[in-house]
Formats: sequence, C-alpha cells, structure tokens
Amino acid sequence: MKLEDVIKIPVKFSEIDSMGRAWHGSYIKYMEDGREAFGRHFPGIGYADMVKAGILAPIVDVHVKYYGPLELNDVAVIRTTYVPKLGARLDFRYEIRRERDDALCCRASTIQLFIDQKQQLMLDEPQYYIDWKQRNGVVID
Amino acid sequence: MKLEDVIKIPVKFSEIDSMGRAWHGSYIKYMEDGREAFGRHFPGIGYADMVKAGILAPIVDVHVKYYGPLELNDVAVIRTTYVPKLGARLDFRYEIRRERDDALCCRASTIQLFIDQKQQLMLDEPQYYIDWKQRNGVVID
Amino acid sequence: MKLEDVIKIPVKFSEIDSMGRAWHGSYIKYMEDGREAFGRHFPGIGYADMVKAGILAPIVDVHVKYYGPLELNDVAVIRTTYVPKLGARLDFRYEIRRERDDALCCRASTIQLFIDQKQQLMLDEPQYYIDWKQRNGVVID
Amino acid sequence: MKLEDVIKIPVKFSEIDSMGRAWHGSYIKYMEDGREAFGRHFPGIGYADMVKAGILAPIVDVHVKYYGPLELNDVAVIRTTYVPKLGARLDFRYEIRRERDDALCCRASTIQLFIDQKQQLMLDEPQYYIDWKQRNGVVID
Repeated sequence: MKLEDVIKIPVKFSEIDSMGRAWHGSYIKYMEDGREAFGRHFPGIGYADMVKAGILAPIVDVHVKYYGPLELNDVAVIRTTYVPKLGARLDFRYEIRRERDDALCCRASTIQLFIDQKQQLMLDEPQYYIDWKQRNGVVID
Repeated sequence: MKLEDVIKIPVKFSEIDSMGRAWHGSYIKYMEDGREAFGRHFPGIGYADMVKAGILAPIVDVHVKYYGPLELNDVAVIRTTYVPKLGARLDFRYEIRRERDDALCCRASTIQLFIDQKQQLMLDEPQYYIDWKQRNGVVID
Repeated sequence: MKLEDVIKIPVKFSEIDSMGRAWHGSYIKYMEDGREAFGRHFPGIGYADMVKAGILAPIVDVHVKYYGPLELNDVAVIRTTYVPKLGARLDFRYEIRRERDDALCCRASTIQLFIDQKQQLMLDEPQYYIDWKQRNGVVID
Repeated sequence: MKLEDVIKIPVKFSEIDSMGRAWHGSYIKYMEDGREAFGRHFPGIGYADMVKAGILAPIVDVHVKYYGPLELNDVAVIRTTYVPKLGARLDFRYEIRRERDDALCCRASTIQLFIDQKQQLMLDEPQYYIDWKQRNGVVID
C-alpha cells in the first residue's frame, strides 16, 4: 500500500522569475507544501509532533529534476509519496504536474534524519516514527 | 548627531519578478539587511542581544514607498537611519538608491516594540536599549 | 456595495522565523495571495489582463500594521477590500485574522499606479480599469 | 586548471527557521549567489549575456546535501566550481562552509541546459558558451 497525498497549489506572482516561469527555488516550497499536506493526511510525523517529542527531523538531502515550466495562472498538482527505507530516516518522493495539461514539471526527493535534544544524530528511530509506521501499516522489506 | 549606516547589496536573480524588476516584497529583505548592518555598526541592539536579554523587538509597523525600479545587475544602496522617539519603541527610516545613477528607488520606515519573556508588551524601555542610547549619545527632545 | 474577498491560507513552516511566528515579510505574500484571490473573484484587473493590455500596475505604497502573531499550524484568514479612489490608481485594504480564535493579526493597505509600455506613469485610467469599475458598479464620490 | 570563485554571505534573520538554523531552501539562494559571483569573475555566461543572445539556461537539476547548520550571525563561505562536461550543458559544484569554524555545511550541484527563443532545448552549445570556454581554457576530455 502506497502512502501518498495530492494537493493543488496556485503559482503566485512573487514566485515567477524574469523568464516568466516559477523560479526553480520555489519548488522547494511546493515540496514543503506537499509534505505538510501529507502530514495532515497521515498525522503523527508533523513538525508539531516532532517539537513535542523533542526530536526534530531536518532535511539532509534534496534532489530536484525539472521537466517543464510552471507559469503564472498555472496550478501545481503536487503528489507526495512516502518511501519506506530501512533505518532512522524519513524519505519522500514528489511529482509536480501542471493542472491545465497534466504535463510533468518536476520529480524530486528528500531525505530527513532525526536529531535529539542535544543536536545529536539518532541511529535508532524515535518512538513517534515507529508508532506512525505501525499505525499506517508500513512494511519495510 | 545622526546614527546611520549605508550598505550596498547586489540585486539577485531570484528577486526579479516577471516585470523585470525587484519584486516589491524584496525590499522588506533589503531593509532587514540595512537594519542588521546598522546593528553591526552600533552594537547592542541586534537580535542576539535581544535573545540574551530575553526581550525581543518584533516589527509592528512597516511603510514602504516605491519611486523607481531596481533591475538585474543593479546594486541597491541602502541607508538606514535611527529615528529617536519618546518611549519604549525602536524606529528606523530607510532610503534605497540605485548605485548606477543614484536614482531614488524607495523610502521606508519601521517601528519595533519590545515584548518580554511572557510575550507581554513592555511599556518601559529595556535596560539594553537605555544603555545603547546612552553609549551612542541619543538625545530625545 | 463593498467589493471584497476572503481566503484562508495555512501558514508554512518556511515562513516561521526564529521567534516562532510568521516572519513580518511573509505578510506581503499573504496580501498578494489576497489580491490574486480578489482578482479571480472580480475578473478583469489581474496581472494577465494587465499584460494583455500592455499596462501594468506596480505597487508604489505598502503599509502594514501588525497586531498579533501567526504561528505554525495557524490558518491566516485574509480579507481583501477594494477601496475606490479618484484618479488613475488602484487601492486595496487588507485585514488578516487567525482562524483559531479570530484574533486580529494585521491591517494593511497597498496603492498601485499604472505604467504604459514606455514605462511612463499614466495620468488617466486605462480602459480595462474603467470597464472593470463599470461592470462592478464602482461609484466614486 | 579549476575555474572557481569564493564569496562570503552573512546569514539573514529572515532565512532562519523555527529550529534556529538557516532554512534548507535558503541554500538554493546561496548557490545562486555563488553562481552570480562566479559569473562576475569569469564574465560571458551571466544571465544578461544569455538574454542578449536570446538563449537562456534554466536549471534542470539541483542536488543538495546538508552536513551542518548555519545559524544567525554565521557567515556562509560559498565555493562555486565549474564542472566541465561534454555537450550542451553547464554544470556547477558548490561547497558551503561556516566561516567561524570552517565546518562543512553543504555540498551541492546544479545542471543547466540551453533553450532557444522558441523555448526549444538546444542540442548544440550556443556560441557564447563556446567562446567562454575557449577564453577560459576549458578542456573537456
């Protein structure tokens, strides 16, 4: 079973660059929008949960590939998919399409690791993540 | 005696909008750059000082007037001036010019108030601000 | 009759500053979101209309007053109201409230002027704006 | 011979997130700052040159790995290195260190392709890029 969520975000005027397309850095925000919508859909691993547990999950790897432009008045359709991986890490995959013609604009991925209150990298998964995986039937081969 | 500081900031590609000029919201960052440079020039009221004292100074009023565009390859010359005012408040005035022709691009102002660790508005000035004013010979009529 | 529009925008993680509240510059984007939603509600003065007519309307004045913080997980409720004014100008007023408790967070205003294809300031209103006012029953005293 | 450039950029208050460190998306701007400084150092492939030739070079791939945080008052030392590759593409590698302790914060890379005035992908290198490589003694094995 795939854990994924789709949201639609209209492109903003302030995101359009002088080439007339969404600036490539704007996609980092679209991915964050996607991740936050995913977190509302499958609750328990949002930023608020992390703060409560005192264990944050900063992003350590971002990879974005651009296939076509988003322009003003375009709506970005962002599909965020959880990617089960062995160990204390949280992986997502993203696909962004233009709503008007369903053209692929972007494929991307992020990796998050866990750090405890002493800012130390955690080698074992925090309890809230173990619980979340169980609740959502995540099986890692 | 006027307390003021001037810095030069090159306009970035990501700040240029689809009209080919720095997006109007970018000026809020230029003003922040100006305020931070001012803080390095006249130390004691920077964000780090505020955190140490547990008394922050959020911005409660921003007013920006735009007179001419900044374009790609332009350098913004930002003049930040402290405006002495009676009471527990911190006021700055800003002027932004294009380096290439000294044209006026923007005049702006900000007001900051002080909040204590309980997030309460302070009616009296915090000690670090009183000290800073004395050190810098600020006289308020 | 008042021309106004209300939208709800969730605050994003990337908009939260180190004080734990939406950075004051983020409100410029919320206002832009409000203005764009207003433009979809009362079509004819959006950026695309302006580009088609070759007559843009850059912002020349922004004034923002902050009354209370927006925090992570807050939803900003943005009310954008058209303010009829005599002459070749486009004025909006904004009010931003926190959805959870309806607390007032921000009151703001913007002024836009019109520039033609030679980048000259227009002293008379462009046709699309005259048409838009008529269609929407705008009466200016 | 390596073509590379180093610049120092102070971290801004508005770039700090609620975890107290530069938001991961801010690094996309640091990389852009690095690329623009590189372009001033080795002129001929800047955005202005591209606009003049009518051949732009949008970014099609960004990969960022994060090794340590940048905090308020930190200065980011950004090293931008041109990576010679066969074909119509423009590749850069980036390394970002904290000035105070020389700690590695980020390694990253970008790939740009060329598009002509009809928005078509170019299979051959534009003349300005061939000229730039010759002027700078770029040899591709």
